[in-house]
Amino acid sequence: MSQVPPDPDIMDDPHGGTAQADDGYVLTDEFVYEVEDALEAEDAERVAELVEPLHVADLADLLEYLTRDERHHTVEILGAGLDPEVLAYLDPAVREEVIEQLGPRGLARALSALDSDDAVEIFEDLDEEFQSRILATLPRAYRTLLEESLSYPEDSAGRLMQRETIAVPSAWTVGETIDYMRESEDLPDDFYDLFIVNPKHRPIGAIPLSRVLRSRRPVRLTEIMDTDLHILPVEMDQEDVAYQFRQYGLVSAPVVDEAGRLVGAITVDDVVHVIDEEAEEDLMKLGGVTETDLYSAALDTAKARFSWLVVNLLTAILASVVIGLFQDSIEKAVALAVLMPIVASMGGNAGTQTLTVAVRSIAMKDLTAANALRFVGKEILVGSFNAVTFAVLTGTVAWLWFDSPGLGVLMAAAMIVNLLVASLSGTLIPLGLERMGVDPAIASSVFLTTVTDVVGFFAFLGLAALFLL
Amino acid sequence: MSQVPPDPDIMDDPHGGTAQADDGYVLTDEFVYEVEDALEAEDAERVAELVEPLHVADLADLLEYLTRDERHHTVEILGAGLDPEVLAYLDPAVREEVIEQLGPRGLARALSALDSDDAVEIFEDLDEEFQSRILATLPRAYRTLLEESLSYPEDSAGRLMQRETIAVPSAWTVGETIDYMRESEDLPDDFYDLFIVNPKHRPIGAIPLSRVLRSRRPVRLTEIMDTDLHILPVEMDQEDVAYQFRQYGLVSAPVVDEAGRLVGAITVDDVVHVIDEEAEEDLMKLGGVTETDLYSAALDTAKARFSWLVVNLLTAILASVVIGLFQDSIEKAVALAVLMPIVASMGGNAGTQTLTVAVRSIAMKDLTAANALRFVGKEILVGSFNAVTFAVLTGTVAWLWFDSPGLGVLMAAAMIVNLLVASLSGTLIPLGLERMGVDPAIASSVFLTTVTDVVGFFAFLGLAALFLL
Repeated sequence: MSQVPPDPDIMDDPHGGTAQADDGYVLTDEFVYEVEDALEAEDAERVAELVEPLHVADLADLLEYLTRDERHHTVEILGAGLDPEVLAYLDPAVREEVIEQLGPRGLARALSALDSDDAVEIFEDLDEEFQSRILATLPRAYRTLLEESLSYPEDSAGRLMQRETIAVPSAWTVGETIDYMRESEDLPDDFYDLFIVNPKHRPIGAIPLSRVLRSRRPVRLTEIMDTDLHILPVEMDQEDVAYQFRQYGLVSAPVVDEAGRLVGAITVDDVVHVIDEEAEEDLMKLGGVTETDLYSAALDTAKARFSWLVVNLLTAILASVVIGLFQDSIEKAVALAVLMPIVASMGGNAGTQTLTVAVRSIAMKDLTAANALRFVGKEILVGSFNAVTFAVLTGTVAWLWFDSPGLGVLMAAAMIVNLLVASLSGTLIPLGLERMGVDPAIASSVFLTTVTDVVGFFAFLGLAALFLL
Repeated sequence: MSQVPPDPDIMDDPHGGTAQADDGYVLTDEFVYEVEDALEAEDAERVAELVEPLHVADLADLLEYLTRDERHHTVEILGAGLDPEVLAYLDPAVREEVIEQLGPRGLARALSALDSDDAVEIFEDLDEEFQSRILATLPRAYRTLLEESLSYPEDSAGRLMQRETIAVPSAWTVGETIDYMRESEDLPDDFYDLFIVNPKHRPIGAIPLSRVLRSRRPVRLTEIMDTDLHILPVEMDQEDVAYQFRQYGLVSAPVVDEAGRLVGAITVDDVVHVIDEEAEEDLMKLGGVTETDLYSAALDTAKARFSWLVVNLLTAILASVVIGLFQDSIEKAVALAVLMPIVASMGGNAGTQTLTVAVRSIAMKDLTAANALRFVGKEILVGSFNAVTFAVLTGTVAWLWFDSPGLGVLMAAAMIVNLLVASLSGTLIPLGLERMGVDPAIASSVFLTTVTDVVGFFAFLGLAALFLL
């Protein structure tokens, strides 16, 4: 199709501009080692040469990989050449360090070079004293913008949105719109939809840019706009924002204030981060960690994890108290002590399976009051199947191991009780917490293992005390 | 800005077209109940009236919420009015049911109405016999397209991409490009970037549509294009594709074949689904479930979960064998049986915290060989802190409970051993599995609890046998 012979250099590089590993991963271990070697050799020039071509996202990752000292040194070498946008990509713990190094003046300079959404993300993590010191040094207009954004609740659409939007009156044609965009300087860097507003500045339609490009100049915007908008109130929680984007495959969406006026727009790249964050939160909470602490100092990490372990200790002690009730039985038949962890552990694992599905389904709005009963019913069926199967398996093991049919029957009975309880708890605990307004990811698993441990030990030892001894 | 008074209806609806709940969630429980009531009353007209205005994504969710019979009935009522796109949004288990109901002819009709990426997603799940029956009924060109897509590996960029792309020769100007787009009929529905290709049809640059719109007609594309492209090989794994989009905030990216020729494009909406899927997979695997089975039949679910429980049973038996070695000690001091689960459980929980952070960090490429050593070192520090703290706490509990200072010291010693082992295993197991090419999410937790159970019981009972009795 092309008539002019293109530049042969461009022609023959199959990977366009960037040299990439096969999985598209730029920051290989070798590369990181090379940077570390250059840092150790105090070869500032080599460091700059290696780091300079990196995308900000990769530079942020590199800074995270380095040790505290290496990082400090790298930031020093880059100096004013450090792209301020890198701050938006850094993990909060590492970002704090870099900000400290930049100082209030350096940070103020960095912030004013950023889009409003990135600036807000960095700014909201600072402590209040530091915030006011920074604000004092910022230009008036920018300061007002930041303060306004910070007035929206944390994790809301208002914090996530870009303030720079493109809104066009409904009377315009495609041609007028294109001319306006060609002349106007004050537009956002990237946008994917054109929002049409009425005289009250309320969004009444949207047009994907591809459709604008494909329409002829005299066509009126109202003729080609979509009117089934997904409008996000400025106070909407970011989890609900992510739901809208995911559910409707949005690329951008308008954000409105209480009066319905367009105040900003959210684009999908911001939402990808929210989706990652929310998924990570659920995973971490189920694992008993409040947030990824990969880059936190050891003492901070230990402190953050401490409370969860204390809760688990109380749970474990409760289970031990149950065992303590049956010391006489154990003295008479020590095989009970050998076998009892099997009952508790199988209950815990079967319950965790159910629980994991429930927590994820609730988070994805797949499990709601409308189908909760069916879910519980199905899990009881699954639990019964497991209960029977593993009663036979573990009963046989116990019988053969200790050559005691009685112990086998006891094991089977306790297993049935605990696996049924496990599937009930695995469904009812997260559903109950959700209904009470508590995040099921954070507390479900500790409740579950408490139940399966206590019931497991109680059923096994209690039945033994009643029938076997 | 607008001179023509707009339609007052449009003017005063603050939410544009769609009526939404506050969290933007259309499918409220009340709505689902209303549909179910209409279905029960055999009021087909009311059902159609309720369902018709739904977005396909919401219709898919509704179908998932309903019981098997209700779903069958709803699909029947909708008949030819069922938007084929709904199939792309359905959970695989539910989709299979609906496809069965549609029959091969209905499915073939549905497929030919879809974009190639959606059609492939549905098609790849069908069994081979059904696939060939469907293929036979499809138009030749469409059939070739599908077969080509299916020749790419599962979960690859090739399966994910849209075949319909917009590629423009590098010699064109903005004006020529706009004219071409206005005239051409055969363009993808949605696109966000224009890809510039050389005569060999290799991508050499990209231009966001917003930039095209803002540039004047005589400007040459090569003057305004970005050349640092993120080009995805057609064989690239979807996890790596998601990494590229997330890392570089991409909205669309070109896909090339082995010769570097442009063969398709991936857009961010498809990637959002991949990100969700990958996050879900990790969560599920850590919870011992292969995939969300919310909509699977009870027996299928039970079967899928069975193997994990068997593995756990073997682990539990191994721990019991360790206890069995010390039956004499337990007979002499039954308090050992009471306290031993505390040691094992604390080890398991502390190890799981470390493990969760490691698994997530590996998945997000935050933890690699370059910083692995530092991570292990930090976790040992955290583990030591926990070890000392909980040794003191549990030692005191044991001492006071059984009024035996010796038991307290024993407890403390065993706790130190197990918590140190827990932090080591929590880091080394996932890192080791990753290095061996095994997904750390799937096998880590069972290895970990095996270690912490065995070491916990062995340390506690072994030290007791050596020093206490």
